[in-house]
Formats: sequence, structure tokens, C-alpha cells
Amino acid sequence: MPSAVITLTTDFGSADGYAAAMKGVILSICPGVTFVDISHEVPPQDIAHAAFVLGTACPYFPGGAVHLAVVDPGVGTERQPLCLVTPDGAYVAPDNGILTYVIMSYMSNGMPGRAMMREDSFMQPMSVPLPRGCAAYALSREEFWRKPVSYTFHGRDIFAPAAAHLAAGVPPEKLGDPLDRLVCLNVPRPQKRGNTILGRIIYVDRFGNLVSNIRLDGANGERVEVEIEGRRISGLSRSYAGGPELLAIIGSHGYLEVAVRNGSAMQLIGAGMGSRVKVVTLIRPRRGGRSRLAYGTGP
Amino acid sequence: MPSAVITLTTDFGSADGYAAAMKGVILSICPGVTFVDISHEVPPQDIAHAAFVLGTACPYFPGGAVHLAVVDPGVGTERQPLCLVTPDGAYVAPDNGILTYVIMSYMSNGMPGRAMMREDSFMQPMSVPLPRGCAAYALSREEFWRKPVSYTFHGRDIFAPAAAHLAAGVPPEKLGDPLDRLVCLNVPRPQKRGNTILGRIIYVDRFGNLVSNIRLDGANGERVEVEIEGRRISGLSRSYAGGPELLAIIGSHGYLEVAVRNGSAMQLIGAGMGSRVKVVTLIRPRRGGRSRLAYGTGP
Amino acid sequence: MPSAVITLTTDFGSADGYAAAMKGVILSICPGVTFVDISHEVPPQDIAHAAFVLGTACPYFPGGAVHLAVVDPGVGTERQPLCLVTPDGAYVAPDNGILTYVIMSYMSNGMPGRAMMREDSFMQPMSVPLPRGCAAYALSREEFWRKPVSYTFHGRDIFAPAAAHLAAGVPPEKLGDPLDRLVCLNVPRPQKRGNTILGRIIYVDRFGNLVSNIRLDGANGERVEVEIEGRRISGLSRSYAGGPELLAIIGSHGYLEVAVRNGSAMQLIGAGMGSRVKVVTLIRPRRGGRSRLAYGTGP
Repeated sequence: MPSAVITLTTDFGSADGYAAAMKGVILSICPGVTFVDISHEVPPQDIAHAAFVLGTACPYFPGGAVHLAVVDPGVGTERQPLCLVTPDGAYVAPDNGILTYVIMSYMSNGMPGRAMMREDSFMQPMSVPLPRGCAAYALSREEFWRKPVSYTFHGRDIFAPAAAHLAAGVPPEKLGDPLDRLVCLNVPRPQKRGNTILGRIIYVDRFGNLVSNIRLDGANGERVEVEIEGRRISGLSRSYAGGPELLAIIGSHGYLEVAVRNGSAMQLIGAGMGSRVKVVTLIRPRRGGRSRLAYGTGP
Repeated sequence: MPSAVITLTTDFGSADGYAAAMKGVILSICPGVTFVDISHEVPPQDIAHAAFVLGTACPYFPGGAVHLAVVDPGVGTERQPLCLVTPDGAYVAPDNGILTYVIMSYMSNGMPGRAMMREDSFMQPMSVPLPRGCAAYALSREEFWRKPVSYTFHGRDIFAPAAAHLAAGVPPEKLGDPLDRLVCLNVPRPQKRGNTILGRIIYVDRFGNLVSNIRLDGANGERVEVEIEGRRISGLSRSYAGGPELLAIIGSHGYLEVAVRNGSAMQLIGAGMGSRVKVVTLIRPRRGGRSRLAYGTGP
Repeated sequence: MPSAVITLTTDFGSADGYAAAMKGVILSICPGVTFVDISHEVPPQDIAHAAFVLGTACPYFPGGAVHLAVVDPGVGTERQPLCLVTPDGAYVAPDNGILTYVIMSYMSNGMPGRAMMREDSFMQPMSVPLPRGCAAYALSREEFWRKPVSYTFHGRDIFAPAAAHLAAGVPPEKLGDPLDRLVCLNVPRPQKRGNTILGRIIYVDRFGNLVSNIRLDGANGERVEVEIEGRRISGLSRSYAGGPELLAIIGSHGYLEVAVRNGSAMQLIGAGMGSRVKVVTLIRPRRGGRSRLAYGTGP
């Protein structure tokens, strides 16, 4: 029987041994577990970054995996440590928005809320109801904590033990009281106006690729024009290598991405988190028909 | 039966494949071992950094783990490769001070030596007797080396094979001759003068948090004042998020730490390794009674 | 029975979760596999760097290991995804030169081709015949791909599944059509002229050590003089710590290396990839005898 899988996502970096302390705690509770580091290089306290990474990496894991995510600027305050159980895996994390894209993927409309484009609420935390088919529990039962609990490292003392107990077969409802609302970041919904879609950059990867909130399933790539920071890109490319220097492409996560061949789009055009993107499709929908341009935000 | 655990701590970085070569050697000797990378991002040749990381991460691992640590600026010179066996795990490393905090944790007084505050000896290597309950062996038996042994990479050719053989069940005394003295770095002991404790910064983590050698078990956090680089901090915080911008807190390792909310204390106040810290407790001990302020340096 | 081993080498970095997505795909196909990250910190799109890392790390792994290598600037273009089976392990990678040093190690003369020192061809891709004893297959059978295949992330959708199927026991010839030529980078061959060897820097490691293409098996280190960027180094050192500040040493991979004690040779002397190195041996070969100085480029 293959061993249980626990993934780890933190902003601890790899110089200090904090992530390793969590693994030591886990191995003491659940020997033989298989670890996969998703990332320990999340920029410090960047919950939105971690949320996107989790949303695009976790779906590829076997269903029984436990995903431990600790980017926790509120450690020691009243933010709630939780366990979220979905049809495709369990998540152990602070309730601070780090599970935003995971939660969105189980929402019927793929969106955490309304009024997404309000300027001042971009990526701000908001409370949403638990999606259908999921369950969530506060990590409130102290018998599953490591004692003494430090003020500053709940990753080691609360989250890691919970993940280990889940991987070892403890039913999630034993860990604490059920929750019916969760915190999500306000990921903006793209806005459609005629043949135009307005979106935002919601992630910048390590290559400097700019990832937007716009999905273009089934778009005719040749008839699309993308505008960002005053630059205009004609058509979608099918590879980073084959396109023009500045190019638009559907990334591996399904989102429209702006990239630079062998370089960083972020640096070249001076865009970043929250930058506005406009997509204009040059095919008008047939009279009474549907546009061929679909869009959405679920990963 | 769960597989053996080997942890790795080096300054090899992750760009070059040096750590992976060690893992390949280990898997060839002890198939099925579970690896945990504590850190490969120790600053190059920074033995004091590695020592602190080991001292604060290794105690959380199961007792049977083998901890392989290679920060080895003296590779190819006469510094001794060794194996240290403690009640809580085995260590394979050069005898250059990298096991300082591990060794200190088994010393009856928690300190490697005396005269710790002498200015010129801060973190300098010194020889100390093997702590009671521990055993140490030189890695002198060549039949446990990988041949040919390179001049420059004993990690791959001497240390990794030794860790693999230990994990595979070879008794440590087979690896070489017993040792009765070890090298420790001279970690300064905090000095108490009346209601004041004088200490030093002994570690800076990746967030820029400044970790001192002062433990304040049972201190009344409100009645403590911390001074560093001309700054004064009133009281201890219980979370990074809840305190003032510049705050003092007991870190997850038990040491007094100076931190900046969502920022780097190192950068903000211009302090670093060796900087002086002063703690003043505002409660005078009752006449004839003991101060409520305990201190020490063992991890 | 110990689990299968899959190593990973990419330029994905560790901030984004791309490497983790590949691991999730692999675990879904081949549960219980042991992962070893060789490096995810290859400089973006630096095929020559990745090739050297693979060539110096993979030989230390057990023969059954599968080595997955994805530095793939041509993703989405017509470069061929392939599997290379050698007597010592299997490799899954794009056919873009990333396996150069692996392939070279199985060539009878240890060299991919001729005319290596032509200035304009340094590290340029070239086509070479498959070495004797090896087999190679295009990853052309779509039933072993993850669907839908994205344009931009064949690592997740083509390479990772192939590595997982190999580790799970699928014979490599099932993955696609056999190949009889492979792409290698043009690693220059050192040139011998009398008692002088002319070489190039082919790798710079994270310490700033400059690795040349010159091997000096059996050289008398005292009688060797090394020149680089106008600097002259007398004799070979046997340790980084024991030598002069700027020193020449035989690295753990067997190549002549120029290093700086506790510093970066790259920074100190301003050299890098492609810099020229000259080695002069001060012993003249006996009349009619062989020079004691051997050289070559195979890892």
C-alpha cells in the first residue's frame, strides 16, 4: 500500500529549518509519509501568491493527499486554523484566504462573490459560505496539538500535527468544530462589454509571466487582441518560443498570460499584480448566437 | 515498517546538484530511505548559521533519524569527519562546530564553556568534552567511504556513505575510532546584572528576525524592556501581527527575538550577528526571593 | 522492495508550484515513488547548466532510477520529447542538448563531435548518433500523455507521465518510435599543444567556482601552471581551505576548477562561461615517452 502524501506550501524559505521542523513533527506522528514540497518560497506573507500556487498545483495530486499550507501573518491572533475537506483532497491551513482558488473551484459559479471589480477590494479578504460537497472544521481540539504551543509557530504546533493525524487516518471531524463560512480573497471577475473583456493580473510567476483572471476557452487565437500597460498584442501564441517578443498565450492553468520570449514581461512592460488587461475579440458574435469567446475565473 | 529517515543540511544551494549526488550515493547504499532537506541554503561556509538551524529543527524528528550536516570550509584539511550519537538521533558531520547547539543541549549546564562574553571569542571554535550519554566516532574506517575520495567533496564520498550505513543499521562504532572531545562554537552566555540581562544576537532568520541568546521562561512580558542598537521596546508581544512595528517576542525556539511587523528587523535597525541586546525587568525580585526572570542558552 | 526513484531537474524555481504539479501527476500514475530533486534552480532556459548538473549528479544514483529533466525553452515547437535508456538509468527530457554530458559519457571518445573549438559553435546544439549500448524513443504515443496537453507545460502533460510510466514498469519502447540521433551541445574539446592545454570554462557553480573542460588525471600538481583572464596560478591545491586565495584544484567531478578561498572566483577575476583557460605543465615528457598529463572531457 503506497504511503500517505502530504504536500507543504509555506513562506518559510529554505534557509532556516522551519519547514523541516514541521516535517519532523509529522514523521513523529505518521511515519513513512511521502512529502511533496509545493513551495517554501512564497514571498513573505503573500497570501494571494500562495493561494494561486495551491489552486494550480493541488488538483494534480491523488485524491487522498493532505495539503498543508502555512502563510500565516496573523499567527497568534484570532484567525482560525482549519481543515477543509473537498472531494479531491484535504487542506490544513489558516482561514485567511490561502485556500481561495481551491474554494472557488467548488463554487457553482466559480466565483467567491459579487462586485469583484471594486477598486478597493482587489484581493481583500471576505467571508463566503462553504461550497456544497465540502466540509470544514476548526482545529480546536487541543489533544491534536503539539504542546507547548508557541505563540509564533502554529505551523509546527497546530497545523503540522493536524495534517499528520489526517494522513494517519484520524477522521477530520475529530479535529474540531464544523465551520460553515470561510475566508476568500476577492479575486476580481473579468467584465464583458460587447466584444471586450476587462481583467486584471492576478499572479506573476518566477519567469515574470503575467497571469490574468481571463480564461479564453475555445477562442480563435488569431482574432484576439490583448492590451496591457499601453502595449497591444495581436493574436494568441501557441508557444513561448514561437511567438513575437511580447506575446499573449493561454497558460498551463487555463488563464490568459502575457509573456516575453526568453525574458520577463513584468520587467519589460512594468506591469504586476492588479494591472489591467483588455481583450478584444475581432469576431462579432452571429446575430442571436453566442460569442465564441467564453470566459470565467475558476482554475 | 516505516523507512529510515535521513535529514540533510548543507550550504550547497540547489542550483548545482551537489546535494543530489549525496542522495544518489545514499540510495545506492540504503534504498528506500526517506529524505528530509532541512536546508541547502545555509549561507556559504556559515557554520554558526547551520549550527542554529540543526539545533532548532532536529529535536522535532523521530529518535531514529540520521542527521547529515555538511558545511565544510575545511574539506581536504585535517578537520575530523565524525558521527555523534545522542539519545535522540545520530549526526554525521565535520567536527567544526556545526553541531554546537546539539551538543549544548546535552551539557549539564547547557553551555559549551566559560568566559563566553570575551569579545574576540564570539562564535569561535573551541574544544569541549563529549557530553554524558553521547558517543562520538571518527569516520576513519575507509571501507565505509566511497572510492575514490575526492579532495573537495567529502559530503559525497565520506559523510553521505556514513549516514547511509547508519540508516541501514551499521553500528556507529564500526565507522571508526571513538572521540572524547568535540569542537563547539563559543556561543556567548547572557550575563545577568541585577535586573538586567546582557545578550547577543546569535541568529538572523530569513524574515530578518533577530534571535538572541536570551531565554525568558516565565517572564512577565509586560514588565520587560528590551534595548538593541539604541532602540527601546516596551513589553513582549504575543504575536508578530498584534504588536507594535518593532517588537520583542519569545520565538518558537524559546529565545528572545526582535522582529518587525511585516518587515525585516535586521534592515530596519541595522543589527545583525553579534549585536548586543539588553533586557531590563521592571519587577525587582522580592527580598531574599528569586527573580521571576529565568535565563539560559540551551535550545 | 524499495520504491522506484525519479529525479527531477528543471528551471521552474520553487516559488510557483510547477514542479509540484509534475510530482502530483507522477504520484497519480506511480504511487509510492521516491522523488529526489536534483535542481529546480537551473537559471531560466540555461540548457548548458542543466546538462552539466545532470552529468555530474545522475551517475551517483542506482541504475534503475528515472531522471526527468525539463529545461524546455522550445516547448510547443517541434523539438522532440524523448526517453533515453542507458545502462545506468533512464532519462526523460526534451531533445535539446540537456542530456549532453550523459550522452558524452557513453561515447567511445567521450566527445560529441569534431572541430569543437570553433569560436561560433561553443555550446551550440548539433546532431549526434545514438551511442552504442543506449536506446532512445520519441514520446510520441499519446496514450501515455496527460490530456488535454497544454501548449506551454509539456513537463506536466508529456514528460512527467512518461517518467511515471517508466518507473511503474512500462517498457520504454512502448512510449514511442525509436530515435537514432540526438541533440548535443557542442562542448569544446581541450586542445593540446606541446606542454600546453587550452580549454574553456564550461560551468560556474553557486560558489562562483569556474569549472573547465580540462581533466588532469595523474598530473603532478606542483608542476602545473594555470592561466585565466591574465592571472597565473602556480600548482594545484588539494583543498579549498589550504591553498592561496586564488587557486586551481581538481573538482569533485574530475575537471580542473579555478576557485577563490571563501569567495567567488567568477567575481574576483571576472571570468564566466566560455572563458579561456591555459594549463602549462612544467615537466617535459621523456623522449619517446608519454606525457604524464592526460586530458579529456568525459565526466
